[in-house]
Amino acid sequence: MAAADPGALVERARTGDRGAIARLLSLVEAGGPAAAAALADLYPHTGRAYTIGITGPPGAGKSTLTDRLVGRIRRDGDEVGVLAVDPTSPFSGGAILGDRIRMQDHALDSGVFIRSMATRGHLGGLALATPQAVRILDAAGKPWVIIETVGVGQVEVEVASAADTTVVVLNPGWGDAVQANKAGLLEIADVLVINKADWPGLDDAVRDLRQMLELSGASDWEPPIVETVATERRGVDELWDAIGAHRAYVEADGRLALHRAARLRTEIRSLVAERLGERAAVVCDGPRFDDLMTRVVARDVDPHAAADALLDS
Amino acid sequence: MAAADPGALVERARTGDRGAIARLLSLVEAGGPAAAAALADLYPHTGRAYTIGITGPPGAGKSTLTDRLVGRIRRDGDEVGVLAVDPTSPFSGGAILGDRIRMQDHALDSGVFIRSMATRGHLGGLALATPQAVRILDAAGKPWVIIETVGVGQVEVEVASAADTTVVVLNPGWGDAVQANKAGLLEIADVLVINKADWPGLDDAVRDLRQMLELSGASDWEPPIVETVATERRGVDELWDAIGAHRAYVEADGRLALHRAARLRTEIRSLVAERLGERAAVVCDGPRFDDLMTRVVARDVDPHAAADALLDS
Repeated sequence: MAAADPGALVERARTGDRGAIARLLSLVEAGGPAAAAALADLYPHTGRAYTIGITGPPGAGKSTLTDRLVGRIRRDGDEVGVLAVDPTSPFSGGAILGDRIRMQDHALDSGVFIRSMATRGHLGGLALATPQAVRILDAAGKPWVIIETVGVGQVEVEVASAADTTVVVLNPGWGDAVQANKAGLLEIADVLVINKADWPGLDDAVRDLRQMLELSGASDWEPPIVETVATERRGVDELWDAIGAHRAYVEADGRLALHRAARLRTEIRSLVAERLGERAAVVCDGPRFDDLMTRVVARDVDPHAAADALLDS
Repeated sequence: MAAADPGALVERARTGDRGAIARLLSLVEAGGPAAAAALADLYPHTGRAYTIGITGPPGAGKSTLTDRLVGRIRRDGDEVGVLAVDPTSPFSGGAILGDRIRMQDHALDSGVFIRSMATRGHLGGLALATPQAVRILDAAGKPWVIIETVGVGQVEVEVASAADTTVVVLNPGWGDAVQANKAGLLEIADVLVINKADWPGLDDAVRDLRQMLELSGASDWEPPIVETVATERRGVDELWDAIGAHRAYVEADGRLALHRAARLRTEIRSLVAERLGERAAVVCDGPRFDDLMTRVVARDVDPHAAADALLDS
């Protein structure tokens, strides 16, 4: 069928066809040869979109803040794509789309494309799928792509930090700067947001964050701390200005191109590792594997020796 | 030097020598051939320890609760090992040991061995290192090993759920049951704890959790919900009894042996994938890789095609 042909889908997606964009995104989530073929067609038409990563602990208000940023971008007339990355349960495979409901303000706006990306059931799956999903929205002509994560797991931090500007959202009451630092959040933050800034503890949170930033601060860029109350649309312009200032900074001296090249290197390394992992899955199946497992359970063979034996076969 | 010989270290660790245990744990964190050799020596002497995983969002009080459980176990005269698994920053590589300071009650107790395990800089590193670390404590004669995670990232959930009994710690104020469900926590919980049970919102939290559990509840085992105030040592006996009840349940009908065999299968698959990943690292280096990267940055070659070309070489 012509409509399922990746090349035809790419052509349609480039005209902004929402159905084609959605089908390409599903292709990329599923992985496999069709996704690779679509990427090959897409890739020459990418490189114009600017990506914004939004991460932070669950409940910090990331979805609402993303919604407000979308509104701010639309005020300028620009189109925007949103990828809500949700590693959630490694067991059931389903994304809970509750958060998306909050964004229904924009459901009827053809200039906004929102998509939840769920886990593909293995570590690193989303880290590989997300840059490809960004390329689809990029080739479809969205000048802005927001990558919002549900939480602050390793994968989510990896995904959010692979954006051109990474925004870390915290709350006055969320633990403290030490917790954010523990999760690796301060190191990846280009812009820090304290959302729910009308809650108690704001001054403490700002002070703690500044101290932690000073301790780790080796970079030229000092992440600004923006106070917002997303539910009341407070601080959204300031956040947008801070993102713009960071963009101007990275674009000024070729830093953005260097960052993007470094991300490509990492991506290709991960792709190579993934393909080798597929080979591993083939090796770890069948009667030879079952036989070895029986011996490992009986403690005749240790797990490392079993892995070596499988690789030698 | 004889002391660095894995075989000699294993012999000393089996007598409970703390220095030898610590060196073996460092070996396993670092990975490589010495770790594999140590594991081969250790492996026949393992299988007696019972493991308890403790996970939950940052700030839920996991460290304090672990400390109380250690105290409870010591009251019975049993020895116990604690592994505090901390994927924290994928960038700096260092574990922040602040939480450990809270456990200094047991610092002088020779029946307690506490160790923080930090990231080895790549996804899955801790998931592979943790079961090996457990084996060291197991072979050293600890009948109980507690695996405590710092947060609820994918790796941490994976690590904590690979215990014989997994305890998930929440708070009355921590988002709601939906957030816990999103993070995959309810699916892995054998015992649920609502710590800081003296905070407002306890009844709502218990009700929400029960509802979520009923919706997902396909298993024979219904996770009990234990209310604790770890700082005041309230509910610790009840938690210990709940862990004991779950242990009795899995031990009654061979379920524990099946679970452990399934975990071994997963571990060996991961070991095979890791070794293939090391081969990937070799491929993704050198002038050929640099040349391909230049072409990918110029958009002459797409990332998938580059990965294929590297694997063919």
